[in-house]
Amino acid sequence: MTFHHHTLPNGLTILGETNPAALSVAVAFWVKTGSRDETPDVSGVSHFLEHMVFKGTPRRDAFAVNRDFSRIGADNNAWTSEENTVFHAVVLPEFLPQLEDVLADILRPSLRGVDFETEKKVILDEIVRYEVQPGWAVYDQARRTFYAGHPLGNSILGTTQSISALTRDQMAAYFRRRYVAPNILAVAAGNFDWDRFVHLVGQATADWPIGDAPRTNRTEPPGAGGVHLITKPADKVSQQYVTMIAPAAPADHALGYAGALVSTVVGDYTGSRMFWALTDPGLADEAGMGIDECDGAGAYYTSFNCDPDRAAECFGIVRRLLEDVQKNGITQEEFQQAKTKVLSREVRAGERTARRMATVAKDWVYRGEYRSVDDELAAWDAVTMKDVREVLDRYPLTNQTVTAYGPLEKLT
Amino acid sequence: MTFHHHTLPNGLTILGETNPAALSVAVAFWVKTGSRDETPDVSGVSHFLEHMVFKGTPRRDAFAVNRDFSRIGADNNAWTSEENTVFHAVVLPEFLPQLEDVLADILRPSLRGVDFETEKKVILDEIVRYEVQPGWAVYDQARRTFYAGHPLGNSILGTTQSISALTRDQMAAYFRRRYVAPNILAVAAGNFDWDRFVHLVGQATADWPIGDAPRTNRTEPPGAGGVHLITKPADKVSQQYVTMIAPAAPADHALGYAGALVSTVVGDYTGSRMFWALTDPGLADEAGMGIDECDGAGAYYTSFNCDPDRAAECFGIVRRLLEDVQKNGITQEEFQQAKTKVLSREVRAGERTARRMATVAKDWVYRGEYRSVDDELAAWDAVTMKDVREVLDRYPLTNQTVTAYGPLEKLT
Repeated sequence: MTFHHHTLPNGLTILGETNPAALSVAVAFWVKTGSRDETPDVSGVSHFLEHMVFKGTPRRDAFAVNRDFSRIGADNNAWTSEENTVFHAVVLPEFLPQLEDVLADILRPSLRGVDFETEKKVILDEIVRYEVQPGWAVYDQARRTFYAGHPLGNSILGTTQSISALTRDQMAAYFRRRYVAPNILAVAAGNFDWDRFVHLVGQATADWPIGDAPRTNRTEPPGAGGVHLITKPADKVSQQYVTMIAPAAPADHALGYAGALVSTVVGDYTGSRMFWALTDPGLADEAGMGIDECDGAGAYYTSFNCDPDRAAECFGIVRRLLEDVQKNGITQEEFQQAKTKVLSREVRAGERTARRMATVAKDWVYRGEYRSVDDELAAWDAVTMKDVREVLDRYPLTNQTVTAYGPLEKLT
Repeated sequence: MTFHHHTLPNGLTILGETNPAALSVAVAFWVKTGSRDETPDVSGVSHFLEHMVFKGTPRRDAFAVNRDFSRIGADNNAWTSEENTVFHAVVLPEFLPQLEDVLADILRPSLRGVDFETEKKVILDEIVRYEVQPGWAVYDQARRTFYAGHPLGNSILGTTQSISALTRDQMAAYFRRRYVAPNILAVAAGNFDWDRFVHLVGQATADWPIGDAPRTNRTEPPGAGGVHLITKPADKVSQQYVTMIAPAAPADHALGYAGALVSTVVGDYTGSRMFWALTDPGLADEAGMGIDECDGAGAYYTSFNCDPDRAAECFGIVRRLLEDVQKNGITQEEFQQAKTKVLSREVRAGERTARRMATVAKDWVYRGEYRSVDDELAAWDAVTMKDVREVLDRYPLTNQTVTAYGPLEKLT
């Protein structure tokens, strides 16, 4: 695999990892914008705009957009997070020119008023559908509570109120401000010709405007702290959902690897301390810990859901477990096992062009560098038990903000 | 990629596709048994037994089983269908010996009475959880109705009654009858040494019993026909779910490829006739068609869910759409587009060792042959418009058994 990069005159970054042994090529336009870049009056606009991108351009209506992806057998989709909006596809190598043509075209959407109003209904339906899923509701509420006004706590979907009030012109203004060429990357990984890709992207994006789309809120929030209950009638939500958030290392932090190993030992979906303490004995239906590495900030997410009668017991177990790891660290055997797990997952993920493409993009966006699969494996391998102690001291697992969602009126 | 196969003295089949360029190796024990091989008094035993396999052996308790997978970073799981029970894992090449050791060991489970009673509660909970998911409930009911007593209509989970009544000895008897060596395949795909794999499997399974585990019910069911309504209170199920089943080509039928292309044109999740008629205009929340190729039988599944007020309209659209395709076939452009889609998906799937492993196993179990990625692509490429007409004549899309689940008391 060989890495390449290039910057176009308009500021658009092109990244590529060529692998002649791959059977496909994965590409994306990666836009560095998401809900943390929104003001409250346009809450949800990044995600709504992602939908609108598929509704057509001066050259293609929505039918033609879908048809032109289908014709080339593209596996295409898009997603919006707090920090990125990504339009991606995988195709067989021979279809790359047609794919770039349609993908670049839709990134300059018409945002027609009639499509805007139709899609608004779809988004409002989506908000209602998500709100009644307790797993999503507790995640959204827990983040809002933990971040306490920091823009990383902004909702990706927005609210019924913000979306209802949003106008087509507000969306167009957001688009003009955030979808400027220097804020976008064109990325490819797999079997393709680099020079040809640069040429294709250069041609298709030549008239994209330059401009400055800074992110000025890159601070590390301390977390609100405390235990927050959101009580729902038992006939609406029968299980108790608990999500705990603690500050963790940001995406570009040297201790990120050690933090991820701690999270694996404590809360991997199988074989972790939480698995043995909660999932295996059937105390909780689901239990686990993950890490969210963001731009300038990071967070550990510890969550479980269980029968309300067992919530206090489970909560006590999790708190004691976190206190124990915080005080005594992890064992050499746990450390080694977590490394093997993580290394194994990294290698397997490297077999897929779609995954390599996303990794190449993320490493560039968050760390400003390229890392091969081997670089990545070496970095995991280099983590020491001393790093684990250091990350625990710098980002204590006991520094939790707790949000509980379900029938209970108190958690302890 | 190179294919190998070998039969052990006890009758166990070993299959392998070696690919020195792969980064991992995927393996499975593939047991040719599932819910269609059950009698009503043990309904659900295949799936329950799959769970029990992870509960320990004379050499390992449940903790040790999980620990030994975790230690080597294995991505392991299992699944049960109407026809197969499969225990699979992906690891880095150096961990293959340890993986085979634990995987072969658990295939001879202790089935301890105390574990059996604990796990029974887990299964009973799972049945209740599934029953309240309308998408699952309509699938399960539609199959039961369509198959009208044919064992392919057996429920995979079983019922609260059958699982409650099941004894440990009934499960042990089923295990002895169905988990005999000639009814099991050991399969590997990816980066591994074939001779070493045969040696490992041979050693680990040497004492597995021989025996005959035939499947005597390989008939093609005609389908019950008719429209069947299962009416639920609107406060329990707010949407209307409709599933239509029609006989299709069995897994080893030469017309299977043509049938799959028809299904792609009619009901692929994107860009298909159903997508444009129902999903894109927002008439249905979800709509699509798939094909289930089984041992000696096959079925088209056509389904949608929507607001109850729109169910009659959607149902009419689907019926007219199916009648139109049945009468007039598909266009040359649709045919070509479906081929490109399917070819593209096949190639991309071929990049993953886990997917190649499953494909190698299925081709052997259902067709008694090995097919490389290139063989597979050539087979798709060879399908003609004449084949499409032939499969429509042999398996008409209009030969539907309709099951509707939701608040409505009539569908038209």
